[in-house]
Amino acid sequence: MKEHDLVRELAEKNASKIVMLVADGLGGLPLELSGKTELETASTPNLDRLASRGTSGSSVPVLPGITPGSGPGHLGLFGYDPLEFKIGRGALEATGIGFELGPDDVAARGNFCTLDAAGKISDRRAGRIPSEESFAVVEKLQAVKIPGVETFVKPVKEHRFVVVFRGKGLDGRVADTDPQAVGVAPLDPQAADPAAAKTADVAKEFVKQAREILKDEPKANGLVLRGFAAKPALPTYEQLYGLRAAAIAVYPMYKGLARLVGMTLVGKAQSLDEQIAELAKCWNDYDFFFLHFKYTDSTGEDGAFEQKVKRIEELDRAIPKIEALRPDVLIVTGDHSTPSKLKSHSWHPVPTLLAADTCRPDGLTSFSERDCLRGGFGIFPAKHLMLLAMAHAQRFGKYGA
Amino acid sequence: MKEHDLVRELAEKNASKIVMLVADGLGGLPLELSGKTELETASTPNLDRLASRGTSGSSVPVLPGITPGSGPGHLGLFGYDPLEFKIGRGALEATGIGFELGPDDVAARGNFCTLDAAGKISDRRAGRIPSEESFAVVEKLQAVKIPGVETFVKPVKEHRFVVVFRGKGLDGRVADTDPQAVGVAPLDPQAADPAAAKTADVAKEFVKQAREILKDEPKANGLVLRGFAAKPALPTYEQLYGLRAAAIAVYPMYKGLARLVGMTLVGKAQSLDEQIAELAKCWNDYDFFFLHFKYTDSTGEDGAFEQKVKRIEELDRAIPKIEALRPDVLIVTGDHSTPSKLKSHSWHPVPTLLAADTCRPDGLTSFSERDCLRGGFGIFPAKHLMLLAMAHAQRFGKYGA
Repeated sequence: MKEHDLVRELAEKNASKIVMLVADGLGGLPLELSGKTELETASTPNLDRLASRGTSGSSVPVLPGITPGSGPGHLGLFGYDPLEFKIGRGALEATGIGFELGPDDVAARGNFCTLDAAGKISDRRAGRIPSEESFAVVEKLQAVKIPGVETFVKPVKEHRFVVVFRGKGLDGRVADTDPQAVGVAPLDPQAADPAAAKTADVAKEFVKQAREILKDEPKANGLVLRGFAAKPALPTYEQLYGLRAAAIAVYPMYKGLARLVGMTLVGKAQSLDEQIAELAKCWNDYDFFFLHFKYTDSTGEDGAFEQKVKRIEELDRAIPKIEALRPDVLIVTGDHSTPSKLKSHSWHPVPTLLAADTCRPDGLTSFSERDCLRGGFGIFPAKHLMLLAMAHAQRFGKYGA
Repeated sequence: MKEHDLVRELAEKNASKIVMLVADGLGGLPLELSGKTELETASTPNLDRLASRGTSGSSVPVLPGITPGSGPGHLGLFGYDPLEFKIGRGALEATGIGFELGPDDVAARGNFCTLDAAGKISDRRAGRIPSEESFAVVEKLQAVKIPGVETFVKPVKEHRFVVVFRGKGLDGRVADTDPQAVGVAPLDPQAADPAAAKTADVAKEFVKQAREILKDEPKANGLVLRGFAAKPALPTYEQLYGLRAAAIAVYPMYKGLARLVGMTLVGKAQSLDEQIAELAKCWNDYDFFFLHFKYTDSTGEDGAFEQKVKRIEELDRAIPKIEALRPDVLIVTGDHSTPSKLKSHSWHPVPTLLAADTCRPDGLTSFSERDCLRGGFGIFPAKHLMLLAMAHAQRFGKYGA
């Protein structure tokens, strides 16, 4: 990624503090043509004031029209091109449950399924097994022992779990064992590259022992493995930007994503107020602070327009508390849009603002999707946001003489 | 092209319908500084209404400042980077006269010229030979027979014609035989790559026989060949987007361009009204419909400002008939600008709008070059338009989890 070469070349250290407040799924849509979006509906005096003194823009998470998951959405905000840096399904799943992957790990997503007497899949979701039952079955799988390899099996939800193999010489290039159909047997783990032969053998041994353990389960008597993946090779915030970065998040997925880029997880906050209290506590120990606010996304996913409006107002009320710490750069953005109207992530650009003493005024006096279209950053790729953060923190030297 | 990998990964099928109405050369310029463009002058109540409910933007066909021909202009709109996917001059010329190139074909553009007694070019346009005379000479060239190769010679206009060689093992990498000067003899066809040796020999044999046939012609007693090219290797709409695509165009060039990306040519419409009648007729058989409207370009090329305004108003009147079919996504754009003031294609961005229920309002209430600058898509590369079309048709899955 050519931007990273530039960043490494130009990054300088100083005493500045950068706060990136990510309101997950921040962008929205009006419910009706003549209506307003959630952000436009919300009363946001503090964000509006920030917009007046800062610069706004519309950030495009991946490319126009592309809806990102949380992984690519956050990678973009952190300054990693989400088309170049990919987090394999297994690695993301492990990250999402808070499992910290090491350099010798290969993770896969596991699904319990029901096998018939002939060993063929009769139900791909193991009879929609509830989490409580499934967790008990996962517990039994702790008995699997593979020589030379450490094995971790962790529950996710319902029929889903994660397996992590830890050992020297493992490689993520193993094909899925899920035939994506019923009436056929699960596939054997096969190396998709010669370098992954050992990993495929390990996975085969895991499946063999697991099948023996599960054989009398009424629903979950079989399993398939998908998305084998090692920890992605991402340069850290320290390596790239020279930033000591702290992540203050509530949910495991976002903590995990922050860990993948070398941020330190700080505190055990369970609410935005607690997150800001943690922020104040660790203020002197870090240069960059990633604060993640989940509820603008979850209310959007629920199609709860009014609830999303309220969550945005909650976010707005937190702004003065962050400003009180006098960050040099304060960014408010989202990793993607989650319009209540669509009840899902979407491809629409994300309203974004950056406030710093070095901002050139763009004439905006409020923060909304429509305003951000006319903002000083224009419509820009999310992966460039960190360049702007570094610049406004005056942490970049001049390029060329 | 990294966007294509993404498209193949994310494309999903559903029952949505996408209409792309391409008004060739749509963008314009005011004749005087204080004046309006053709589109700003035209009364366009229907396009203005579409702009109110959709999202607008300014599409850049290739790169800022680059004026495209019809080939690159349309490739961009169809989602193919026109700098990566190139249509060789011979292939484009064959396409433009409605010759459907096959996989074993190499096409070249031919120009008749006048040779003096010493065999040197005395007139590079064969005395500006009129089309009627030229067509009769082309007819005589049908007598050329080359063993193992099928040869097609087709008239274009005045001194211009197309030759297509069809046979196994042909290759487009043959150098032009046009010395681009008078007073020198045409060059021999030379392979520019060893793989094209056979094709160079075939071309030599063609030139030899043709020269014999033409030797007594008063004007067109010689010929040069340029732009040897095979059919470009473009993934089809079906392969890329999973779209069954129909092209409803009047002119051979645009039918040909649509065929190159695997669209099916539908009907024999000769007017916009007939095109829309065809659209209605084949509505259930396709997912994507490319409608091409030529006259915004031809009036621009003629420098006929008022005529271009009238053609834009004709286009506007067609909009409700298309809307009556209830497309999920309706796009109105152009392949480039053709300002009457310049009497030619130009590099200026092209006013573009997309109407769908998933649009985020951008506050625009009319459709024009000036409005589109403030639209929700901003100023964007034409090659990204199909990403937006697919997104708004909800035909893309999420990227990453």
